[in-house]
Amino acid sequence: MVKHIFFDIDDTLFPTSEFAELARRKAIRAMVEMGLEESQEKIYAILLKVIEEKGPNYPNQFDEVCKKLKVREPAKYVAAAVGAYHAAKTAIQPYAEVPGTLLKLRDEGYKLYIASNGTSVKQWDKLILLGISLFFEDVFISESVGEEKSEHFFRSVIKRIGAKPEECAMVGDKPSIDTIPAKKAGMKTIRVLLGKHKGEKGKANAEITNFAQLPKILKKL
Amino acid sequence: MVKHIFFDIDDTLFPTSEFAELARRKAIRAMVEMGLEESQEKIYAILLKVIEEKGPNYPNQFDEVCKKLKVREPAKYVAAAVGAYHAAKTAIQPYAEVPGTLLKLRDEGYKLYIASNGTSVKQWDKLILLGISLFFEDVFISESVGEEKSEHFFRSVIKRIGAKPEECAMVGDKPSIDTIPAKKAGMKTIRVLLGKHKGEKGKANAEITNFAQLPKILKKL
Repeated sequence: MVKHIFFDIDDTLFPTSEFAELARRKAIRAMVEMGLEESQEKIYAILLKVIEEKGPNYPNQFDEVCKKLKVREPAKYVAAAVGAYHAAKTAIQPYAEVPGTLLKLRDEGYKLYIASNGTSVKQWDKLILLGISLFFEDVFISESVGEEKSEHFFRSVIKRIGAKPEECAMVGDKPSIDTIPAKKAGMKTIRVLLGKHKGEKGKANAEITNFAQLPKILKKL
Repeated sequence: MVKHIFFDIDDTLFPTSEFAELARRKAIRAMVEMGLEESQEKIYAILLKVIEEKGPNYPNQFDEVCKKLKVREPAKYVAAAVGAYHAAKTAIQPYAEVPGTLLKLRDEGYKLYIASNGTSVKQWDKLILLGISLFFEDVFISESVGEEKSEHFFRSVIKRIGAKPEECAMVGDKPSIDTIPAKKAGMKTIRVLLGKHKGEKGKANAEITNFAQLPKILKKL
């Protein structure tokens, strides 16, 4: 019987990609509002190119965009973009059913945990902004655990909470780092069919398209 | 006759120190809300010590606070603190009379400029958050100009806007970098008696305690 449930964060608890695009659009709008004389579509295309070249976590994306556009005094456009981007990013919200479902699962006696790849402060920041950080018994972020999600990662966190693998379930959207290694570690697996990985292959014990389906499905595992 | 008016930003257009303290208090409150078992007063005292040791622009203030408090897993407290701190810092507002007075001065035909020490993106970010960034003909930040405010700085920006020193006024709160060097450069000077520098010595052509006094005073200079 499942007693402990581990959750991924990005695209499992909230629509990461949607918010990222919204934040980028708002940043570009702010640059134009500040007087940059380019079409928003052109700037967006350049930004996507920068992200492709430098990776999505490159910290000076908007400086680079200004450089490519040969802007002479970029500070005001960078400030406008970063401010608008950050404001949008701090307005992230969970999928609508997430907070209620997590509380219901707690009421039913399950212990909830986070198992997520990423840097600790950044992932904690998301949990806090989503308003759900206090719902979890413990939070396991790859940076703090010392390795990214893998069969070994899951075996090690299961040991740390003093549980048996078959008492644990992993809920996540990306088969290669969520359901596949969790299954290898002996856990039950539930795949969230949302976000950019929903088309990928990978079997799980159950699949959901809406968080509210979780309590019923857990009882059948 | 004054035609061009230069403004400092911090403690001239908005109460910098007040917002900084508010942001620190909110950050500490968020750490305790996240479960840190210390009194807010004790954490605040430690934060002030960190700022004294590392300087006010040290980027890892809250990591350092957790270290001094020997917190074992600091990520969640750091995330909570940084998020709350940033939210408070992005809620800065100008002194209540500032936007209306700036618009009035524009209507009366004055050209407005910023002359501020600091890094370009950070100072632009403040102008944008204050909602006044589009009021100025040009913005001169020390990082972009290539030197901090001094007689030479003022002579050089006056040349850049194609004006004569006696047509220019400088409005600022800190004598040593605002009114004193501006006076040496031949400008009219108006001192804002607000914020932490209000007790310092330094003569100016006029002193104000409220931005709304500015239009009348400028006519008498």
